[in-house]
Amino acid sequence: MSVRLWDKGGATDAQMLRYTSRDDWQLDQRLLAYDLRATVAHVRGLARIGVLSEAERDALVRELEVLEAQNEAGELRLTEDDEDGHSAIEAALVARIGDAGKKVHTGRSRNDQVLVATRLYERDALDELAENATAGARALLDLARREAETPMPGYTHLQRAVPSSVGYWAASFVEGLTDAIDVVRATRALVDRCPLGGAAGFGVNLPLDRVGVARELGFAGVALNPLASQTSRGIIEAQILAAAWQVMAVSRRLAWDLSLFAMSELAFIRLPEAFTTGSSIMPQKRNPDVVELMRAACSVVQGALAEVQSIVALPSGYHRDLQLTKGPTMRGLDEALATSRLLPRLVEGLAFDRERMARAITPECFATDRAVELAVEGVPFREAYRKVAAEIAALPAGDAAASLRARVSLGAPGNLALDDLARRLDRHAR
Amino acid sequence: MSVRLWDKGGATDAQMLRYTSRDDWQLDQRLLAYDLRATVAHVRGLARIGVLSEAERDALVRELEVLEAQNEAGELRLTEDDEDGHSAIEAALVARIGDAGKKVHTGRSRNDQVLVATRLYERDALDELAENATAGARALLDLARREAETPMPGYTHLQRAVPSSVGYWAASFVEGLTDAIDVVRATRALVDRCPLGGAAGFGVNLPLDRVGVARELGFAGVALNPLASQTSRGIIEAQILAAAWQVMAVSRRLAWDLSLFAMSELAFIRLPEAFTTGSSIMPQKRNPDVVELMRAACSVVQGALAEVQSIVALPSGYHRDLQLTKGPTMRGLDEALATSRLLPRLVEGLAFDRERMARAITPECFATDRAVELAVEGVPFREAYRKVAAEIAALPAGDAAASLRARVSLGAPGNLALDDLARRLDRHAR
Amino acid sequence: MSVRLWDKGGATDAQMLRYTSRDDWQLDQRLLAYDLRATVAHVRGLARIGVLSEAERDALVRELEVLEAQNEAGELRLTEDDEDGHSAIEAALVARIGDAGKKVHTGRSRNDQVLVATRLYERDALDELAENATAGARALLDLARREAETPMPGYTHLQRAVPSSVGYWAASFVEGLTDAIDVVRATRALVDRCPLGGAAGFGVNLPLDRVGVARELGFAGVALNPLASQTSRGIIEAQILAAAWQVMAVSRRLAWDLSLFAMSELAFIRLPEAFTTGSSIMPQKRNPDVVELMRAACSVVQGALAEVQSIVALPSGYHRDLQLTKGPTMRGLDEALATSRLLPRLVEGLAFDRERMARAITPECFATDRAVELAVEGVPFREAYRKVAAEIAALPAGDAAASLRARVSLGAPGNLALDDLARRLDRHAR
Amino acid sequence: MSVRLWDKGGATDAQMLRYTSRDDWQLDQRLLAYDLRATVAHVRGLARIGVLSEAERDALVRELEVLEAQNEAGELRLTEDDEDGHSAIEAALVARIGDAGKKVHTGRSRNDQVLVATRLYERDALDELAENATAGARALLDLARREAETPMPGYTHLQRAVPSSVGYWAASFVEGLTDAIDVVRATRALVDRCPLGGAAGFGVNLPLDRVGVARELGFAGVALNPLASQTSRGIIEAQILAAAWQVMAVSRRLAWDLSLFAMSELAFIRLPEAFTTGSSIMPQKRNPDVVELMRAACSVVQGALAEVQSIVALPSGYHRDLQLTKGPTMRGLDEALATSRLLPRLVEGLAFDRERMARAITPECFATDRAVELAVEGVPFREAYRKVAAEIAALPAGDAAASLRARVSLGAPGNLALDDLARRLDRHAR
Repeated sequence: MSVRLWDKGGATDAQMLRYTSRDDWQLDQRLLAYDLRATVAHVRGLARIGVLSEAERDALVRELEVLEAQNEAGELRLTEDDEDGHSAIEAALVARIGDAGKKVHTGRSRNDQVLVATRLYERDALDELAENATAGARALLDLARREAETPMPGYTHLQRAVPSSVGYWAASFVEGLTDAIDVVRATRALVDRCPLGGAAGFGVNLPLDRVGVARELGFAGVALNPLASQTSRGIIEAQILAAAWQVMAVSRRLAWDLSLFAMSELAFIRLPEAFTTGSSIMPQKRNPDVVELMRAACSVVQGALAEVQSIVALPSGYHRDLQLTKGPTMRGLDEALATSRLLPRLVEGLAFDRERMARAITPECFATDRAVELAVEGVPFREAYRKVAAEIAALPAGDAAASLRARVSLGAPGNLALDDLARRLDRHAR
Repeated sequence: MSVRLWDKGGATDAQMLRYTSRDDWQLDQRLLAYDLRATVAHVRGLARIGVLSEAERDALVRELEVLEAQNEAGELRLTEDDEDGHSAIEAALVARIGDAGKKVHTGRSRNDQVLVATRLYERDALDELAENATAGARALLDLARREAETPMPGYTHLQRAVPSSVGYWAASFVEGLTDAIDVVRATRALVDRCPLGGAAGFGVNLPLDRVGVARELGFAGVALNPLASQTSRGIIEAQILAAAWQVMAVSRRLAWDLSLFAMSELAFIRLPEAFTTGSSIMPQKRNPDVVELMRAACSVVQGALAEVQSIVALPSGYHRDLQLTKGPTMRGLDEALATSRLLPRLVEGLAFDRERMARAITPECFATDRAVELAVEGVPFREAYRKVAAEIAALPAGDAAASLRARVSLGAPGNLALDDLARRLDRHAR
Repeated sequence: MSVRLWDKGGATDAQMLRYTSRDDWQLDQRLLAYDLRATVAHVRGLARIGVLSEAERDALVRELEVLEAQNEAGELRLTEDDEDGHSAIEAALVARIGDAGKKVHTGRSRNDQVLVATRLYERDALDELAENATAGARALLDLARREAETPMPGYTHLQRAVPSSVGYWAASFVEGLTDAIDVVRATRALVDRCPLGGAAGFGVNLPLDRVGVARELGFAGVALNPLASQTSRGIIEAQILAAAWQVMAVSRRLAWDLSLFAMSELAFIRLPEAFTTGSSIMPQKRNPDVVELMRAACSVVQGALAEVQSIVALPSGYHRDLQLTKGPTMRGLDEALATSRLLPRLVEGLAFDRERMARAITPECFATDRAVELAVEGVPFREAYRKVAAEIAALPAGDAAASLRARVSLGAPGNLALDDLARRLDRHAR
Repeated sequence: MSVRLWDKGGATDAQMLRYTSRDDWQLDQRLLAYDLRATVAHVRGLARIGVLSEAERDALVRELEVLEAQNEAGELRLTEDDEDGHSAIEAALVARIGDAGKKVHTGRSRNDQVLVATRLYERDALDELAENATAGARALLDLARREAETPMPGYTHLQRAVPSSVGYWAASFVEGLTDAIDVVRATRALVDRCPLGGAAGFGVNLPLDRVGVARELGFAGVALNPLASQTSRGIIEAQILAAAWQVMAVSRRLAWDLSLFAMSELAFIRLPEAFTTGSSIMPQKRNPDVVELMRAACSVVQGALAEVQSIVALPSGYHRDLQLTKGPTMRGLDEALATSRLLPRLVEGLAFDRERMARAITPECFATDRAVELAVEGVPFREAYRKVAAEIAALPAGDAAASLRARVSLGAPGNLALDDLARRLDRHAR
């Protein structure tokens, strides 16, 4: 399938085709299902305005459905020789049904195809990301319920600060992920407008049924101005990656904490065995490799975001530069999906060492409680603070459970508001 | 006001204080109004739970209102000697009303203060950003209406492609900005939860009225888990900057286009004189400096985003690292506000040269129209395409106005859907 | 080859192995030749200190050379089942020669292997990058000689400013690339120290002949402290990508200029046909796609740099996070190599339209010359400037060639100093 | 001083002037000394070619020296009203000595001035950065000598791995910083070419003595092609920030380690008291704030790099966008200088708890040693590894000092090669 759609008979050039096609054929392989689905909708739309006869429409749709089935079965493989998936579809249709195939590109451009296929792909990816993050948040919510009153030291500056609890710690990730899911959902809405029908970015002299096509593809609306759609490439993707980064930044904090908690000096947790690996030279090691990769995974999304943002410093109109937004978008989303998919299993497999955690809550952790108690008794807080500071070495051991129970403000360890968190999370679940 | 809140009598150190305080006192100056407002709400909340007497509350509120008035009048200036605005407020209250002042910190930490003041500031900044972008979009919408049928060449790859119109070009920015405003609004919702009441990040042994305080400050809800709030620093700011970047990326495209259109080789527009400056050595120049700075401004937001994202690669708990999220957040928002503020004036002052634009629509711009016409007549599109390509040199001059009128699909130059865009924009306006 | 080196008999887990191995086996495929070469050197070193017998050494070296030949012939393919290339080599040796194979890992870790293989790879990549950039600079130098006196307008702010020349424009890229090559060479020196012999990052209880091994591998020196080497991962790669960015930023400027010069409104150049492609919908188009991709390519390196920098925000010691520096490093270098490789061909194929360029040098371009002439005649420059500005509309047409000749300062259009540039370039060539 | 150099009598506009001038006057204040110095050299050069008389030269130089003295005394303050420092200097000269002042701009542009002043500033900043890093490395080298044999556990994956030493740990930073200093020095060479004499970027019709001016300003050479110099803005600054990042990335690792070592669970070190601060609510806390800020400081440089790289995605010629490279360059360098300046004091003040560190070297840390010993005795390493792994729980306590002594390869804990490191460091010192 190596003749270019725009080939008018000139010379081609292997080095150049390689430089321009790059790994695009591999990326397009992943968009092929979406491209086929959108082509079906386009064909039906063309028939509705009389550009295709019913017979042509039926022949095209039938062949497209065959291609869809082949693609799903893994039998429709693009190769480096295909300029892109769009060209390959047209070529396949021409090969199978002749002239009707040559009509499928009426009123659209490859630009159209890549825009609509990309948005369909992104919508699915964002949906899965939201689902994965929700599943992770639910696992953390379960953990928070199970260990709502299990004391563990709370740290600031990596220094023991005040008594905390496993439930409180877990609930913080539930809320963090819920915020992130909000951003993912809002970003999905941005993607949920159908760009098909813009042709080369300036519309086309046909009365395309854009609303009908958008509805058939399940979009919430039509992306109105084709020049806006075209120049949104990379800009929307930046927001997609920014949204994925929100999930990843919270996951990274979780991974970092687990990495710390697993240190033998703290030994608050044992990681699920599947999340650890060995060393090739140190016989004794079980290393938290998976957790470390989950931590680093955030950087993949961050780099992808920087890459996409850097590409789109351009004036209006299509520029081939925009092709390069495809790679980092998929790379970033893949990483976010793979990482978020592991969250529930990781959380469910955590084993906490209650005794180690309890022992780590040393007397000075109760200093703040004591100062506040004095304040309640009427000592101005700043004086209470100085008084407790002066007597810090003599502070008696405290009762962590009591300390937790006493912190009763909404959301504090003694009042975790898990039902509120669950409700917020439910709102996001589909 | 140079004694530190946490000072228990040890030595201080000028070099260290400078390194730790940095330009924070200048940033805090800008947060001071918010910090004071939140302190009033905190004081009222403490009184409601009996930690402060009514008399103490009234004295504190009275003095805080005096401070607010002084601050608004520019008479409350922090200096490099103040560790931060939070300390300065407490010190001022102690100086004025003694023991009651020492009680104001009961049940909260500076962490609390910076979190709530920052969110209040960010909410205002996002509101103004949305308003500025809306005003810019409205100016572009007016332009689109005014010049709906004014032909100009449409470019892809910086090459003339098909006839376009000023109205179509302008409408593309309306839609781009509307998408960006969507992101800004969704991000505002993220910020709109009150974090006050988390103390050092683990709640406090007092029954704080968090819901009441949140309501008094006009928040839509309470940020439940204080550890989540604390560790959201930098993560939420990343989304704020990502949202600002959306506005800036669309504005950059506008600036880039104007920079191109103003080239003497195109001369499609004349920029408002206020947006140009001269050269110190070349007597003849009027340079589009302002537009170039508006283009570069996007990079300020982009750098700020990268900076904030880079800081928060940390485990849970407060780390002083988080202080450094304040600078880039304000820098990025300032730049986005200053730039978006110029949009209406820039757009309103543009003068288009209709004749130059019309002349630039050369015969080959009609090739696509011709191919589609052949396709409608029944020639398979790919053959129509090759046929037109073969005869390209002989293409007659076309009628740009007719070409525009013929592109009637929703959103295309002949059907700009400006009312739909206006409705979407209205939904965002407050 | 799917048993892990560190396998002591526990369960493995497909999902986890996939998450940890990722595409590492593909990246390792590219490092395999270097890994094998370094393994030969390690084996010889072990023999010199008596850890391996001469017979074991010979057997191992022989088999390693067989593996090297197979690898070069493309017959040694890693698969997703291999945890990494290092494990695969050990497994292959054990399979072929038994116990001696099991000894090859004595005194080294996979860390060692990846560090040394990566540096060998990077050294080669930086060498090729310097060569490509040098070849590009030479082509530009030739162009500058050929068109030293061909007038073209010089632009600032995208506005015509003063008469310039093709030679002057081309020479600016020669100097820009030469600066970039300086950075590449300095970065190569950073990489040119042998890290082999650090074991798990803390040395090993063997008297390894590190100097001899380094010499055998052609390194300029030994990376002394293994913990420094280990924690240099990502930090050195950031500098490698920063150096590649230097080349790409200059190439991007070239691509941007060509993209502008090819606009029909300027039409200063025609791009080599191989560097253009067509549109799938617009029959008339020949688009500068390759040049646009060369422009966007800089963003790939920029994103890779951001990704690597983001990963290494870690305390000392090996962390699995560091594995993720491999992908962006290779991606960035690949892009820089592919792009820089095209430079000579692009430059050599450029066709300049002398007449169009000459016509574009309009009278106002001579205003600065005129003001300086007045200044030389004794009118204070600022007054001369104002005088010329006042009479700008009446400026007569100038003689571009004379204007160029008159600018005689070192490096200016009338004194291009091409021999100096050639000398600087020669210093960098090997 | 508010009349613009390019003012020919048109209207100005406060909002626009503020948007274009920004904080540039503050940044220019810092460049003023360099601008004045370069202006003296320019004046002398103009006199050598007869454009200025000896009397004019002497008058100008005398007044410039007065300005330099005033500036050094802090009496020459730019204000928001000054468009930039360059304009202010010219205005001051005109005010003081009339016509001769109006001649100072002959043959140069503000572009020239900012380029040369910036490079002089950057050269100084890079020198100080190298000096600070060298001083830090020397302090670490002293620490390595003092504590060469003090055992501490070596960590990988935050897990205890093998016995290490304070000296070994400290030496790793010496080597890391030395590598970073190499990059700083190479970058300095890039900056060390004089750009003065390029006028508006295309040379000028005067025989400027560029070599003489460069020599007078202490540059190693002349930046030949003015268009190259002009378009190097931002590109060179990216490398400057990349170099600064190298220093900061190593410093961040140090800060991270200290932050960990100071955890009460490890308690390997006590930080110098000046490097810690208190909490406003928790009376017992001494927090490692300074060390945390030193860690976060790397992100400031990273953000500045991203910002600069993002700005320069432009075609050739001066664009006002380039002005925005000034802010992030100074911000990044300031942060790098402030942070690196603290290194010696931090290192010298560290107190190590030898007993805690010794106790933390648990029996399993000797597993690798044991496996290697078996390997030396002839057991194939992979079998030795499995054998030791199987008996891990029964490993006897080891002798850390002996383990360290036995690791004798070059650079390992038993052979730190501190003299080699010192020699490399000396080469960099001036």
